[in-house]
Amino acid sequence: MLEELAFTLPDLRRAYAQGLQPTALIAEVFRRIAHARDPGIFIHVIDRDTLLAQAEALGRFDPDLPFWGIPFAVKDNIDVADCPTTVACPAFAYAADRDAFVVARLRAAGALPIGKTNLDQFATGLVGVRTPWPAPRNAHDPDIVPGGSSSGSAVAVARGIVSFSLGTDTAGSGRVPAALNNIVGLKPTPGALSTTGVVPACRTLDAVSIFALTVADAHEIFHEVCAYDADDPYAKPVRAAAISSPPPQLRIGIPSRNSIRFFGDDQQQDAFDAACDRLRAIATVTEIDFTPFYAVATLLYEGAWVAERDCVIGPLLDTNPEAVLPVIRRIVGRAKDLSATDAFRDFYRLADLRRQLQQVLEPLDMICVPSIPNFPTVAELQADPIGPNSRLGTYTNFANLLGLCALAVPAPARADGRPGGVTLLAQEGHDALLAGLGTIIERWGSRSLGATGWAIPDAAPRPVTASTTEVEIAVCG
Amino acid sequence: MLEELAFTLPDLRRAYAQGLQPTALIAEVFRRIAHARDPGIFIHVIDRDTLLAQAEALGRFDPDLPFWGIPFAVKDNIDVADCPTTVACPAFAYAADRDAFVVARLRAAGALPIGKTNLDQFATGLVGVRTPWPAPRNAHDPDIVPGGSSSGSAVAVARGIVSFSLGTDTAGSGRVPAALNNIVGLKPTPGALSTTGVVPACRTLDAVSIFALTVADAHEIFHEVCAYDADDPYAKPVRAAAISSPPPQLRIGIPSRNSIRFFGDDQQQDAFDAACDRLRAIATVTEIDFTPFYAVATLLYEGAWVAERDCVIGPLLDTNPEAVLPVIRRIVGRAKDLSATDAFRDFYRLADLRRQLQQVLEPLDMICVPSIPNFPTVAELQADPIGPNSRLGTYTNFANLLGLCALAVPAPARADGRPGGVTLLAQEGHDALLAGLGTIIERWGSRSLGATGWAIPDAAPRPVTASTTEVEIAVCG
Repeated sequence: MLEELAFTLPDLRRAYAQGLQPTALIAEVFRRIAHARDPGIFIHVIDRDTLLAQAEALGRFDPDLPFWGIPFAVKDNIDVADCPTTVACPAFAYAADRDAFVVARLRAAGALPIGKTNLDQFATGLVGVRTPWPAPRNAHDPDIVPGGSSSGSAVAVARGIVSFSLGTDTAGSGRVPAALNNIVGLKPTPGALSTTGVVPACRTLDAVSIFALTVADAHEIFHEVCAYDADDPYAKPVRAAAISSPPPQLRIGIPSRNSIRFFGDDQQQDAFDAACDRLRAIATVTEIDFTPFYAVATLLYEGAWVAERDCVIGPLLDTNPEAVLPVIRRIVGRAKDLSATDAFRDFYRLADLRRQLQQVLEPLDMICVPSIPNFPTVAELQADPIGPNSRLGTYTNFANLLGLCALAVPAPARADGRPGGVTLLAQEGHDALLAGLGTIIERWGSRSLGATGWAIPDAAPRPVTASTTEVEIAVCG
Repeated sequence: MLEELAFTLPDLRRAYAQGLQPTALIAEVFRRIAHARDPGIFIHVIDRDTLLAQAEALGRFDPDLPFWGIPFAVKDNIDVADCPTTVACPAFAYAADRDAFVVARLRAAGALPIGKTNLDQFATGLVGVRTPWPAPRNAHDPDIVPGGSSSGSAVAVARGIVSFSLGTDTAGSGRVPAALNNIVGLKPTPGALSTTGVVPACRTLDAVSIFALTVADAHEIFHEVCAYDADDPYAKPVRAAAISSPPPQLRIGIPSRNSIRFFGDDQQQDAFDAACDRLRAIATVTEIDFTPFYAVATLLYEGAWVAERDCVIGPLLDTNPEAVLPVIRRIVGRAKDLSATDAFRDFYRLADLRRQLQQVLEPLDMICVPSIPNFPTVAELQADPIGPNSRLGTYTNFANLLGLCALAVPAPARADGRPGGVTLLAQEGHDALLAGLGTIIERWGSRSLGATGWAIPDAAPRPVTASTTEVEIAVCG
């Protein structure tokens, strides 16, 4: 019975209300970890006795604590008190003595952190296989990469081991693995979630991200952790609104046929076309030239921002280069050739492109893109550790450089069974609008959540299409 | 009679209303240029026949054109159509084929650009003597530096040759020469004024600035040129409000006694103390530790931002280094040693300091500082071209890095007759509030405008201290 329990927030809360004990939940989490037979998901699982004691300490079910007894996983570049933070680099690892800001908020709301998940080393990658530990296996097809850099966090949710997980997303690390594992990946407005206690990848761009089985769950977690942190110099005061239903005259931009890229994956093209057809029934869909978005994306790894990674990894590269994976060394090594003058030239280039794209985005409520252009295999990555990785960022790399919020949402599976999905992006602060459309898209067709076989729970909010004005509806669990 | 006419906006408008012809005005401008006997003020004066034709073309006095017939000067890093733009570097000079955005707005409002003014080469300096042309002479005392980098623009206003002038202000170039010449220097909120058609110094920080004889004049010009320019990637939509009177519970921060710096100029200290005593009569004055502001200021020339200057000057330095003044070569040459990684480290340092200072500024309406810590002589600059220059930026260098707006306002002269003055700074968008207090400060004691002997015209608005709420009052000329 407990073995079949879906770990969505509404299902788990219902089970708690009906008498499930958190200690039994912890035992079930450990059963699921073992059952997954994937040693690559977690770098560190918190000691069972510690977790049972924490579960016990929750006392009686308290519906006023919004995340009472909810198990979650944390990417191993985010501090959890009394756990090591490794960033998938043993030589860099340190013992965290306190929770990251976002983890502390979740714990205060009753949630139970289960362990630290695997990632592309230093969160540098979109494939999930750049780790000295065994890589997590894609929850759907072990031949396909799990996606990264938040690989373990995505797979843990897709396999139903935890209700949700935290990741980070600088280039797409919170969206690409969501798309590859058929779950929701929410990358909020940059600055909305504190990065205090997070090892930086690109400190000016990093965003904490959320993986969940449903859009409503993801948005509710976002709502809980979104709080201004004066100690994070890059934090912004962002209001986490309740999910808003799309306006009646929704305007969505999609990449034009001339500028869209699938690198030969025709099924991905078909799936995206089908998604756009469905969007046309509820929105005005406009094709936009995506070339400037790609130009922005290029700046992230080929431009100045690779120097931000050097700020973090450089000292280790100087003293103990062998401690860093060769592919990461190669990528970050580019920073040595970049002058401050080069950096400012790239900032000007970005400023020009931002201004140009502001005019493209202005008349739109959001844009919709494929979350990933194709499905690289583990074997392809072994042959070429950089090319397939770069292509995976086609529709993600530009988001933080442009200050956009993004939501990767599952859509009906492709004809070959691989996960379908699109990503919605909007200008800063419109996270709730993306969630509104996301709750519609995730209900297209009958679809199971992640790799679990569970259905979307009925208790999730159903978006209401307002007739004249935008209406905010409460998220109820 | 015309020889005595004050060129403030109200005085000049009154003269026009009473029949003054713009052609006569142009002739008077040329007489004043000749009378000043200072070949350093202008790098290029527009041909007299061209100006007379433009004056003629204005037709009959049109009070609906707000700047009808008003003569102004333009710093020679700002494009004026059909004039060369030299940036005080003949090898860099080019012929401008169109007006800069701000010049175009003034011309459309009826104003008459007279010529291009001298500056510290590439707007790199606060002294005004870093130019291959003769340096402008300080309008009060030729032994003292004129201040820069907008030296010619400041002196042209202080000598009453034009009604106002445009400068630029990255490190203090719009405030330091104002203070040294007893005039008003308005450096608006960064991004409020378009920099399209302006040769960059530090493109991410540059601000167009305004020199005028009175605060009301400066603010009216700001109001005219403040318009969002979508072509300038660093422009921000800023509303230029009418001058607002200070709130009844005005809160002003001043540098603490332990952190204030005058480099041995006791009279400057006394003058600032006297100003603060007067402020205490109308505001709550709080001492704040200025150390973090100095730390921000240091970043501008000793940190990453010198690389922005290299973006502009570097190509010329590579091909024709002798074309650049040795002192500028020395300053900008530092950029060669800065990596992109160094640049990001400085951005993080700035972000930390900004966040720290946000908490200092939050409970204050504005801060008030000496505009300059002391009065360096031309001889001192000849002996050490960098030290006295750096010290001049003590109270200015940090403003744009922190996104502050600033207003340098004349105050009663010091005991030794040198110009008195303070600078007010506030968080972005509060330009009108600074002007409100500025109109009070500029009326402390009987004071002549610039070096002209003219008094502040009665027609200027008198600030009203509202009893309970902030009141906006119209600027009337």
